[in-house]
Order: sequence, then C-alpha cells, then structure tokens
Amino acid sequence: MAKITSVSPLAPAGFPDLPVIEGVRFATAAAGVKYQGRTDVMLATLAPGSVVAGAFTRSATRAAPVLDCQAKLGRVSEAGAAILVNSGNANAFTGKHGTASVEAITAAVAQSCGVPQDRVFTSSTGVIGEPLPHDRIVAALRALTDSADAGGVADAAKAIMTTDTFPKGAKAQVDVGGKFVNIAGIAKGSGMIAPDMATMLVYIFTDAQIGQEALQTLVSMHNETTFNSITVDSDTSTSDSLIVAATGASGVSVDGHDGFSAALHGVMEDLAHQVVKDGEGATKFVEVRITGAASDAEAKTHCMAIANSPLIKTAIAGEDPNWGRVVMAIGKSGAQADRDRLSIHFGDVEVAKDGWRSETYSEEAAAAHMKGQHIVIAVDLGIGNGKATVWTCDLTHGYIAINADYRS
Amino acid sequence: MAKITSVSPLAPAGFPDLPVIEGVRFATAAAGVKYQGRTDVMLATLAPGSVVAGAFTRSATRAAPVLDCQAKLGRVSEAGAAILVNSGNANAFTGKHGTASVEAITAAVAQSCGVPQDRVFTSSTGVIGEPLPHDRIVAALRALTDSADAGGVADAAKAIMTTDTFPKGAKAQVDVGGKFVNIAGIAKGSGMIAPDMATMLVYIFTDAQIGQEALQTLVSMHNETTFNSITVDSDTSTSDSLIVAATGASGVSVDGHDGFSAALHGVMEDLAHQVVKDGEGATKFVEVRITGAASDAEAKTHCMAIANSPLIKTAIAGEDPNWGRVVMAIGKSGAQADRDRLSIHFGDVEVAKDGWRSETYSEEAAAAHMKGQHIVIAVDLGIGNGKATVWTCDLTHGYIAINADYRS
Repeated sequence: MAKITSVSPLAPAGFPDLPVIEGVRFATAAAGVKYQGRTDVMLATLAPGSVVAGAFTRSATRAAPVLDCQAKLGRVSEAGAAILVNSGNANAFTGKHGTASVEAITAAVAQSCGVPQDRVFTSSTGVIGEPLPHDRIVAALRALTDSADAGGVADAAKAIMTTDTFPKGAKAQVDVGGKFVNIAGIAKGSGMIAPDMATMLVYIFTDAQIGQEALQTLVSMHNETTFNSITVDSDTSTSDSLIVAATGASGVSVDGHDGFSAALHGVMEDLAHQVVKDGEGATKFVEVRITGAASDAEAKTHCMAIANSPLIKTAIAGEDPNWGRVVMAIGKSGAQADRDRLSIHFGDVEVAKDGWRSETYSEEAAAAHMKGQHIVIAVDLGIGNGKATVWTCDLTHGYIAINADYRS
Repeated sequence: MAKITSVSPLAPAGFPDLPVIEGVRFATAAAGVKYQGRTDVMLATLAPGSVVAGAFTRSATRAAPVLDCQAKLGRVSEAGAAILVNSGNANAFTGKHGTASVEAITAAVAQSCGVPQDRVFTSSTGVIGEPLPHDRIVAALRALTDSADAGGVADAAKAIMTTDTFPKGAKAQVDVGGKFVNIAGIAKGSGMIAPDMATMLVYIFTDAQIGQEALQTLVSMHNETTFNSITVDSDTSTSDSLIVAATGASGVSVDGHDGFSAALHGVMEDLAHQVVKDGEGATKFVEVRITGAASDAEAKTHCMAIANSPLIKTAIAGEDPNWGRVVMAIGKSGAQADRDRLSIHFGDVEVAKDGWRSETYSEEAAAAHMKGQHIVIAVDLGIGNGKATVWTCDLTHGYIAINADYRS
C-alpha cells in the first residue's frame, strides 16, 4: 500500500451527517484480507422489495465480482438483497480462482443474510493478480450479519477505502408532494491509482419507491455526466462499480419525478467530485467546460483530451495559464474544431478569441485565477450547440511520488 | 524556455558523422527570433530535380507552416527547392498573422535562393500564440544563402533544437547493384513538451533517384511504424513535420528497391528512437510489443494504451514490474482482449500466462530487468495475428519539474 502522508488539501471539512435510509443496514469488520489494524469488509443488507440498479467499468479485463454483478443486475425480486465489499484485494486477473471466490462469498452471504444468492452483489478492491483469501471474509460473516445496523454508513465508507485520504459521503432529501424521500451515498477512489490499489466504488441508497427499469435509466443517464465525466490519470480500473438501491420504505413513489432525478444526480456528482479531489497528489480541482461543439459527444471528447493532457495538468500544477497547451489538446482530440473560431477562458479571464490571443488578455488576471484551488478552463468552439463538462485534478510531484517512489 | 540542466541519460555517445548528400546545402544563422546566443534558423537548399515527400501532424489546430507545406507537397517540379526552419516561435494559433508570416518568408526564400515559391517549405517550432517576428528571419536570408554549404548538416541539427538536450542525426548507405546511395537525416523533439516549445521536426535527405509518388508511398508507410509509433506524453504538437527530399544526384534509381526502403525505414526509426530518448525527464527507453491481436490496428491501440498510461510509466520510473497495470491498460484500450488468454513478458521474464500469474514468475528476475535502461513489455493476446511495436519513456519527477516548476 502506498504511503499516505496526509489528507488531500482538497478534502471537504468532514464526513457529512448522512440520513438513515429505512430498509438498509450496515456492518463492517476487520477480516485481515490484507491490511492490519483497520476494517476491510463492509456488508449492506437491503429489505425485501428493494430495487437495485448499477453501472460498471467497461474494461475488457473486468474482475470476477464485476462480471457477477452484471449478470445479476436487472432481475426483479421481492426478496431481500445484500452488498458485500472488501478492500485490500481486487480479485482481478485471478482466473478461475476469482470466479470461485465470488461463488464462495455470495453463497455464504446468501445463507447468512437469508437472501437468494442471485441477490448478493460483491465488489473487491486492492491488489490485482493475487488470489482473494475469501475464507477470511466468509469467517467474518456471522458477526457482520449480527451487528448490521441502520446507522453504520460512516463506518462503511471507511471500510472500503484503499489509498483514499478521506472517506466520501453525500446526501439529498427530496420533497415529493409534501412527503420526503432520502438519498445517502458513499464512495471510494482516488484514481486508478496507487500501487495496485485502485478502483472507484460507489454505493447509493434511497428509501424512494421506484421500478427497477426506471431506476436503471436514471443511473445510466446520470452516470454519463458524473462518474463517467471525471478523470484523474486516464487510467481505468478493472473493478469500477456503482450500485444504487431503492428500498421503497418511504412509501413515496418517485417514478418520473424530476426532483428525485435531480437529487440523485446531485449525490452522484458530489461523490464524483470528491473522488477527483482525492486524486493522487492533487492540489487543484479542475473543471473543463466545452461549448459550441458539433455535438455533446464531440464536446466530451475535447473535454477529455484537455483533462487527460499531461502538459495541461502539469501547467495547472505550476499555476501557469498556458492556453497554448489547450489549443494543442483541442487539436489532437480527434473531434471537430476550427482553429480560427476557438475562444478560451481561464475562470472569468478571456485568454483567446477567434483563434488568437484575446485583445483584453491580462497575464496577471489569468495567473491570479491559476493560483486558486478551483480552476475553470472553458472553451467555446464556435461550431455548434454541443456541450460537456468534465472534472479532473492537476499532475504533481505527489502523483509521481505515490506511483513511482514506493514499491507495491 | 525550460531550464535544461543536462543531457538525457539515454542520449547516444555523440552526433553521427553524416555523409554529404550531393545536391543539398545547409546554412544556419542566429536571427534572434527568441533565443539569444545560439543559432535559430536553418536553410537547406535542394538542387533542381529534387523530389520532396512528407508527413505532418493530424492536429485539427495545425500551424500555418504545416498547412502551407501540405498544400505544396506532391507537386512535381524540375526546379530547385528550399526548406527553411526556425526555432523559438511556432507560428501556431496566430490567425491571419501566421499565414502572412509564412507568405513573407516563403517569398523571400524563393527570391534569395532562386526557386519557385511553391517549392519553399517552412517549419516553425517554439512558443504558441505569439506573432512570428518574420522580419528577423527575412533579414538573415542573404547571409544564409551565401553561406550554404554541403557539409553543414550537424549545425543544422543544432539550429532546430528547442528543449532537446542533444542534436539528433542518423544515416544509411545502400548498395544498389554495386552503386551506393546515401541517406542522412536530422530531427528535433523531446515530446509535445516544455513550456510551449514543443514539436517534432524531421528532415531526411538522400541522393537516390526516385519518383515523387514512390517516395511519398515509402514515407507514409514507414511513418506509421516509426514516428507514429512513439509517444512521450500522449500530447500532439500543432506543428509536427517530416520532410524527405531525394536529389537524385547519385544517378542511381531506387524505385521499388527493397534495400532502399529498409534503409530509409532504419533512418526514420533511429531518429524516432532518439526523440523518445530525449523525452522530458526520461530515464528509461521502453519498447511495448503486442502480438496475437485481432489486427495490426488493434495491436497498436493496445500498445498506445500501455505506452501512454501514467500508472505504467510511473511504475517503470520506480523500476516496479507492475504487471497488474499492464492488464489494466489492455482492458481500458477499447481494443479486443480476452483476460484469460493474456500473457505478459517483462524482457525475457514471463510474468503472466493465460490470464494468471506465471507459474515460473520470479519477482527478482522481473525487478532485475526493470533496473536496465531499455525496458521491454511484451503482451501476447492469444486472439489473432495482429502485431505492433511502440516506443516510449518513463514518467518521472523530471517531467513534472520541466513542465510544472518553470513558468513559460
């Protein structure tokens, strides 16, 4: 495990006071999967009738737990369900051993929690290529099941951390015709990152009543503009998983309710931003906005070219308003651009207009913006109506130190 | 200009003793485009009947000189020709000013050298977004033309440098039925890299006799496996240019001669490798070989995913045989892969086989390979016959220092 020296300078003041979600109970244990002296397994149980949706890594070398979750998702059931997550070992690139571990864990959780095995979802995060010592997890299950508690979400957020420097939580409350539904979510991740200890995992819970398909539609849609719109180092984990569970315990239907959709989006965006803010070595939170592109998809391509450019990320680390590198990234992205229609802002400062340095450009004003912790790079392509926003962080000596200087 | 503290540890022992190419003459000058106390303009004149081929950046925000060269290339002419290159200013993202500068320079070179304006090719490398002070270049032209000399290629290689830590040259001699033709090339570039001073520029000269179309076909083909198969930081310059000129002065036709094709490929590959070896902060030269892919194109996609992965490049800097990150990169590339058929070698050491850690894996042997200066990562996908090789360097504190710690 990489040496964690201190909490990210971009971390929020503290872990939020998340609401209890009726129908969900949490438990954590120190099973000794790899780490000593900390919790490394979390169990969340979901009451009968809960609906589960999700989104997963598109990696061609997906880990065994991801393949298992994807196969199970979308089935509608009146039975209860369970989510079990371990840190310390990713159970990735473990061949048939990996599949056997998932089978052993899901069978044991099903028995321990009294739910069907095809309603048990697991995630593993940590070292790649090492067999998962699943016996240690199975051995902890009885105690986990017995201690599950509605208030344990903050401990759950800690148990799933690997190289994270702070636990991540977010919440929302939605007024649906005078009745309230709650959303609470936790996440881990600081990039596909740190010696073999990568992966973004996200678990969001709500007491709203909603159909499985409707929830899946919302999750897929919002995933595109939140978790699929962040990048730390352009590297993708084999295990990224997002699971959203709706217990329906509030008795309040949110099918087709815009306020619920917006609130869910807000929780997802908040957690996505926290993952970026814990990016390895990050000292700046960077928002990249493209407007005027040929399409939204082309806008996102440009955003990602900027957000993943090592030259732009190092310039931001150096507080250098280097707009020439932004022009370079737009040019290389492969998406449509017209050099002579480009305009670029750093924060409120117009640095380039119509393909040329802005007449009002002030190096001092641009440099002042770069000294802040929240950097905004906005590019208008002047071609169409496509737009997108992506978030990233800077590339610093801290990133190199974490990933090169320490051996896994 | 970024502070250049020392020559790359991967630099060759010295600049090669390049042969004189009959029909080509070189001159350099210190025109003060931006730098003081060094040459920053080079002129190469080509005898009448010379054939010119080339390849250029695919950036959508190409600089004015690139657009001008592309428009002129492919025309066959019996007249002489000239190549003029300046360092210090890229004349990129300079709007109509950029076009006017190219017009002014090419007109002046045409007059000074007595060649048609549409046979004058220019390149500019250096700062983006600043108007090129082309008057300084024009003012130097008379002296340049007067001093042009067949033996000036080594000085030419120095005049085009920006953040390069060493000048780059390569040569070949080909036996064509008992007669010899010579090839000599120079290059600059250390990535799209250093505060605004980016770009790879390559000029190759031969006394071989060959048709324009035949030469262009060779250049385009070999470009794909040489300059288009290297990456330092995944960032692409708006000005990358490769020009190959054949004077025909040897009187030896090489149309369809495999030996000439192989020799030209060799010179291009040698120069491409030197660019990587001068990658900013580079301490390791890395060869990524993919075999067994669904197609050659898919193999190259996998190669580039590995070669551009910050996590792999930092692991190499840390001399860490971290094969889990290679699995990650294969998974994220978007090209076809089957996790359970993958095998991976670091040098001669088999680290993974059939989707699982190799039974013969030796951490010590893999770590020993990583301590060398030439790292080989070979992946067989076990799917088809597609293959590709790409070269890159590691990602170190030196890269961050050059690109973040110094302001442009």
